[in-house]
Amino acid sequence: MASLPTFADVQAAARRLEGVTLRTPLLENARVNAMLGGRLFLKAECLQRTGSFKLRGAYNFLALMSEADRGKGVVGWSSGNHAQGLAEAARLLDVKATIVMPADAPALKVANTRASGAEVVFYDRIKDSREAIGQDIARKTGATIVPPYDHPWILTGQGTAGLEIVEQAKAAGVTLDAVAAPCSGGGLATGIALAVKGLSPATSVHAGEPAGFDDLARSLSLGTKQTNAKLSGSICDALLAPTPGDITFALAKTLLGPGLVVTDDEVLDAMETAFREFKIVVEPGGAVALAAALTGKLPVKGRTVAVVCSGGNVDHATYIRALARRAA
Amino acid sequence: MASLPTFADVQAAARRLEGVTLRTPLLENARVNAMLGGRLFLKAECLQRTGSFKLRGAYNFLALMSEADRGKGVVGWSSGNHAQGLAEAARLLDVKATIVMPADAPALKVANTRASGAEVVFYDRIKDSREAIGQDIARKTGATIVPPYDHPWILTGQGTAGLEIVEQAKAAGVTLDAVAAPCSGGGLATGIALAVKGLSPATSVHAGEPAGFDDLARSLSLGTKQTNAKLSGSICDALLAPTPGDITFALAKTLLGPGLVVTDDEVLDAMETAFREFKIVVEPGGAVALAAALTGKLPVKGRTVAVVCSGGNVDHATYIRALARRAA
Repeated sequence: MASLPTFADVQAAARRLEGVTLRTPLLENARVNAMLGGRLFLKAECLQRTGSFKLRGAYNFLALMSEADRGKGVVGWSSGNHAQGLAEAARLLDVKATIVMPADAPALKVANTRASGAEVVFYDRIKDSREAIGQDIARKTGATIVPPYDHPWILTGQGTAGLEIVEQAKAAGVTLDAVAAPCSGGGLATGIALAVKGLSPATSVHAGEPAGFDDLARSLSLGTKQTNAKLSGSICDALLAPTPGDITFALAKTLLGPGLVVTDDEVLDAMETAFREFKIVVEPGGAVALAAALTGKLPVKGRTVAVVCSGGNVDHATYIRALARRAA
Repeated sequence: MASLPTFADVQAAARRLEGVTLRTPLLENARVNAMLGGRLFLKAECLQRTGSFKLRGAYNFLALMSEADRGKGVVGWSSGNHAQGLAEAARLLDVKATIVMPADAPALKVANTRASGAEVVFYDRIKDSREAIGQDIARKTGATIVPPYDHPWILTGQGTAGLEIVEQAKAAGVTLDAVAAPCSGGGLATGIALAVKGLSPATSVHAGEPAGFDDLARSLSLGTKQTNAKLSGSICDALLAPTPGDITFALAKTLLGPGLVVTDDEVLDAMETAFREFKIVVEPGGAVALAAALTGKLPVKGRTVAVVCSGGNVDHATYIRALARRAA
């Protein structure tokens, strides 16, 4: 493996993203703080362009490609946030994008991806391999494959959210004891860890995962890469990567504290709290770190903690299900 | 009437609010822009501390009171956002607050007001006058009455949101053709107009109201203060003031363009768009200006427009009703 990305790479990514990505707010709520007995800050990446943090890494990747490569286009596979982030990054940089999506992907996500000008190629989840289809497109057209997390350009782009968190906390006059972010393949959590450790070495950084899909938590605990037993079955549709990436795991081993694992019910409750107290729309996978803080799995009592709410691309029915848990 | 407040008063209010209120983000969405054929920016004041812009004016008012008066406390009447903003401002400045609320106010709003440390005094909507109760408390205790909108200290505090809008638009490289804000008694709309006209005189400023409660729109059209025929009956519970304030109407006559009037259905649709595209939770009254932009009543085509989403304190049932209008 080549050398691992560094704090300086995240700082360079931040310069590339200036004027492109939104500096999303770091929210705080007096009532929630009183309830938890500490200070909890939410980094509202659901408000990011395309509705999740994914534009950060995708844009950084495309900006680092050679002009010749950009001329041949990019290809990626995703049914969700990476698709929308990559398609929008390509639109902004005038690059042709092809996104391989499952034939049964939600109509809204397909429409959103197409609205950014990307070409959508469908595959059958049972019969086809999306990787094979994407690699075939890359081979035939010369397009560059843009991976969802296991690449230095991607994860350092995502890490720019971590720079903002520490800067915004400093502006609020606080030093963070801990930062937590949702984790699928680990690009966001490790990118943020690079940034946070670079600016505030004493702050611990944690990755949150859904129960049953806690491959990173178990990998960190055992010291070697573990794989999830199931490929589906959590409400957190964005967090189902089967195993950590090679680069992300190498970084995670040195940068991350113990993993945080939450249940679907805890995630739904966190979505409802985000609605009621913070007025932001958070999707299930985007709410796992918040859920860990609200349940005490990530202790807030007597401490100052920031959690990333990483996306808000949730369908109406799931959102109504979360709100219906609490009449008010 | 004493002299009307000025742009400089809004600038002074902004200095008082530094480090107190959140600089809420100015959001934009590529898909919504493409649909409207222009550029639409949302000022997300629903993310403000206490869930609405009301903390701006209340804090500015309390900060301008003499120390002796602050020692005797403040009193206000409101069933909603002003209650929460005033109670929180009082908590932050260590001032005793008494809030007169209807006995049938939603339990959540009462709890939120109490959570800021305010004393809640209930009144009977049928039998009692909340003004009389509040004035009686003020007489007996020496507490200062903090009005919801018709006071220079209140409206110039609210106007600080307008300074931020113009500054944030400038940072995004655009000049605004128009700005619109929700309107009940007119404090937010006229405060914002003072700020916007001070920084960008060519930008038109408009107040949005619910159909049937368009007292300001009719007052502007006829040149004299008009009163609504009904006191209740709109989903926009925060926008039911019966007539413009004296100070706010004097400012509105010189600063505001024609009023914008939207239906409850248009408001529910705007709340759903705010959920789906912008990932923010907006209450009905907070969505009227957005509704005007989405329906073309405030034209966006070929223009650059900003609307204020002024609050997010909406109950679960109403929010579910808005989402249920569009299956996805």
